[in-house]
Amino acid sequence: MLGRMQEWPLLIHRIIDHAATQHGSRPIISRSVEGPIRRSSYAAARLRALRIAQKLARDGYRQGDRLATLAWNTDRHFELWYGISGMGGICHTLNPRLFEDQLVWIINHAGDSALFLDLTFVPLVERLQPRIPSVRRFIVLTDADHIPQTGLRGVIDIESWLADADGDVAWASLDENTAAGLCYTSGTTGNPKGVLYSHRSNVLHAMATSAPDYMGLSSRDTVMPVVPLFHANGWSLAFSAPMNGAALVMPGAKLDGPSLHSLIENEKVSITAAVPTVWLGLLNHLDATGGKLGALKRVVIGGSACPRAMTEAFETRFGVTVAHAWGMTEMSPLGSFCSIKPDYGDLAGEALLDLKMKQGHAPFTVEMKLTDDAGRNLPWDGRTFGRLMVRGPAIAGSYMNDDGGRILDDDGFFDTGDVATIDPHGYMAITDRSKDVIKSGGEWISSIELENLAMGHPDVSEAAVIGVAHPKWDERPLLIVVPRPGKAPTHADMLAFMTGKIAKWWLPDALVLIEAIPHTATGKIQKTTLREMFRDYQLPA
Amino acid sequence: MLGRMQEWPLLIHRIIDHAATQHGSRPIISRSVEGPIRRSSYAAARLRALRIAQKLARDGYRQGDRLATLAWNTDRHFELWYGISGMGGICHTLNPRLFEDQLVWIINHAGDSALFLDLTFVPLVERLQPRIPSVRRFIVLTDADHIPQTGLRGVIDIESWLADADGDVAWASLDENTAAGLCYTSGTTGNPKGVLYSHRSNVLHAMATSAPDYMGLSSRDTVMPVVPLFHANGWSLAFSAPMNGAALVMPGAKLDGPSLHSLIENEKVSITAAVPTVWLGLLNHLDATGGKLGALKRVVIGGSACPRAMTEAFETRFGVTVAHAWGMTEMSPLGSFCSIKPDYGDLAGEALLDLKMKQGHAPFTVEMKLTDDAGRNLPWDGRTFGRLMVRGPAIAGSYMNDDGGRILDDDGFFDTGDVATIDPHGYMAITDRSKDVIKSGGEWISSIELENLAMGHPDVSEAAVIGVAHPKWDERPLLIVVPRPGKAPTHADMLAFMTGKIAKWWLPDALVLIEAIPHTATGKIQKTTLREMFRDYQLPA
Repeated sequence: MLGRMQEWPLLIHRIIDHAATQHGSRPIISRSVEGPIRRSSYAAARLRALRIAQKLARDGYRQGDRLATLAWNTDRHFELWYGISGMGGICHTLNPRLFEDQLVWIINHAGDSALFLDLTFVPLVERLQPRIPSVRRFIVLTDADHIPQTGLRGVIDIESWLADADGDVAWASLDENTAAGLCYTSGTTGNPKGVLYSHRSNVLHAMATSAPDYMGLSSRDTVMPVVPLFHANGWSLAFSAPMNGAALVMPGAKLDGPSLHSLIENEKVSITAAVPTVWLGLLNHLDATGGKLGALKRVVIGGSACPRAMTEAFETRFGVTVAHAWGMTEMSPLGSFCSIKPDYGDLAGEALLDLKMKQGHAPFTVEMKLTDDAGRNLPWDGRTFGRLMVRGPAIAGSYMNDDGGRILDDDGFFDTGDVATIDPHGYMAITDRSKDVIKSGGEWISSIELENLAMGHPDVSEAAVIGVAHPKWDERPLLIVVPRPGKAPTHADMLAFMTGKIAKWWLPDALVLIEAIPHTATGKIQKTTLREMFRDYQLPA
Repeated sequence: MLGRMQEWPLLIHRIIDHAATQHGSRPIISRSVEGPIRRSSYAAARLRALRIAQKLARDGYRQGDRLATLAWNTDRHFELWYGISGMGGICHTLNPRLFEDQLVWIINHAGDSALFLDLTFVPLVERLQPRIPSVRRFIVLTDADHIPQTGLRGVIDIESWLADADGDVAWASLDENTAAGLCYTSGTTGNPKGVLYSHRSNVLHAMATSAPDYMGLSSRDTVMPVVPLFHANGWSLAFSAPMNGAALVMPGAKLDGPSLHSLIENEKVSITAAVPTVWLGLLNHLDATGGKLGALKRVVIGGSACPRAMTEAFETRFGVTVAHAWGMTEMSPLGSFCSIKPDYGDLAGEALLDLKMKQGHAPFTVEMKLTDDAGRNLPWDGRTFGRLMVRGPAIAGSYMNDDGGRILDDDGFFDTGDVATIDPHGYMAITDRSKDVIKSGGEWISSIELENLAMGHPDVSEAAVIGVAHPKWDERPLLIVVPRPGKAPTHADMLAFMTGKIAKWWLPDALVLIEAIPHTATGKIQKTTLREMFRDYQLPA
């Protein structure tokens, strides 16, 4: 027997409809790429999104078409998300930080039929144009006064394009499982893969993360998403802010400390979210100027592990609560959030900071499990680490075009590629990437934990740890160190320093000093290159 | 093109799974019907719910079976909700405050095949038993030591019934639109109608109401649902509390002021919810004893309009925030919640109290509109009142068995039967029931507003207003007054008192003094009876 409730598909346009109806005058404040601050509202943004949907349909774009954006966080980019998905299109956010070859590959793989771009990216897209034939026209997110001379196909500025659209149309009527958004993951191996969000997944994700223990946005908040909309579904803030009537402050192209600080202060931002490097810039600026963070209550930090000193600086020097979050493009993206459950309500000082270094606990709609190499469940004891597997309605079930084939285990869990511990209260801590973990005698050694420990030695400038082949133990850890100028720590020095701080069998079998450790474009240690460099390394007997 | 997200149906068991996994040790504290306080946890409740599901299946109950409860808010009732829906059954909550004939009618209409009842209700159910043949067995929510001698068919206490079940079963695998809960509305006309909730509607409703502007429950809260689970889906608290890891305090059968106060104080309740009459009992108790409300932060008041003095008492004398809420059984039930949007952030004192008398604004997943008799949309100006129509995924689309036929308008909106205003910021205020509103010359007059005004006259003990036939204006208001002892206000007195406080054409055409106004069992004015009494009333020329 079925229930007798109304059919009300979970469609993205309902979010902006709700915002326009219930929070219509709440502002969207945007640092424009042209320069000045622009002020809009949810009611105005909804109308513009309808005009975009109307123009797309008139121009012959159809449901299922991939419509790409190459843009900063601005009001116009926000409106495109709703306009594109609201006409049944798939909003494909491109990451301008990728190499040009990757962008070309991704645009062709997606078969994007239009590209909306910020002024910043006109020269880049001019170079790409000959190699991306599926893109029929290029629409620049500016007005007639600011559009430059360019040979882009069918180019027009968005204001001229929208001029003859009054927005008097209805949103597309769609199945809630219709694809709405597309974001590629740039895995370290193989080609990028397309994560295809549905209307349902985006709506459910925004609802789940709105709960007080997670993003917890209210109509009294002013949210500044510094994390770009093109990064991991923009952490869903373009959905959760309007859903809850929180005002939006969009920082545009300027993510430096002074620019962010002036927005936080002038617009009374209460919550903001970004990766750690952005906050380093802000904290340095505050150090240099003696600036304060007046209305700011909460900073959400994710994308990579948040340094302890950063959490400490925000909390003790500025009275701003730091919430460590973890997620993936494949998870829409939120997987966990480190708010404080009552089980840890008495923690303070260093013990509280220890807890805040963990990635946190999963919201409703995210199920987690830890498994060993044989797929067996491991205990949540805060010590045992295993592969972190996740399941839920806003987690990828497969990639676009079935690239990569089957990606779920028999119980429908997705392998995050991370190795983690989970404690009895559900707090998850990433200990390594599963491809970097060192497998010694059937047990796992965390390369990251060894690196963090080695980094504490005064002679060490940077450290990396990889597994190298061992006849008896399968793999053993090799410690690779960039020494500080004029220093040359020995294997014995490092062992003396590390002994007693980790299990004895975790101690590295050897030490190599090198001049520089290779990094990825985003500053992470390039372990594949290190493994290549030390492929034939022979451990001492 | 469809998205590529995981299939993860919105099933109720996922809520208790999440609670057991992420908040397993959070307590469920229950005043048992036997007397003592019982302490359980979400992890323990999940296991017991699985044992219930296991036993139901073993006893031959099947998906779609209606399994009734006649019970107070206790841990056992909570577990039944999950056990019944988790095996695919429909949890049918019966309201013990109904007349016996109504209970018999409802049980037979639903075709309940088992009935779980509290000790309190054994004598009542013994009387009903001969008239409810579909009920194969009666399970009393107690243990072998406390079960009385009774001739109920197949009677057993739940602890003996569960003794041989270990809970080692899986939840039923179901379509998310499967019926999960059943609650009858007792309309003032016609037979009661069954509202059939689905797994999807209950999960979405709990998610939507978890947002900070609405119930806003967090893992640091301790929630006491005084509103019974059998009343309007228990305001969804049996879903939203575990979904967010809030501890539960279940008050059992004792809803008097002293009993509630001792639970609030001893168990450090932070949020509680009930109808106004319950809070009257609590406030009277506090007055008499000088008691305080230590940890209590928020009281949610709904079910009928919250008196201004009550809001004032909680907020100014006890420092507890009052949130006025409105809903219906047909809405799962939350329709609106009166939290303070930034548009009204500067209100204080009487102006803030004025706002708090409104029923509040709709959460995401609830759409509202106001219409006139011709179905045309009316403006949200805070003055114009019209029929309040609602749409959303947790709002009834039809009643069980299609009783009452089509209940939605052409746009899929459900008629609440209320007349309301909505202001430009979305704050809705109920002004009347649509069948009580007085239609004069094509315009509407609020009977409730006239009554509230007349009640302010010092000679008036109680007042009611109904529309009576008028040759020119269709209907005109008749004021019916129960005078205070020894008083006899005249029509002229009342007009003098009311003039200037309402539109002139709203003034009642006549006054009748009577000794008593008829009331329903729940204390509301019985307008149908009044209209019957004054059916032939002739207005003075």
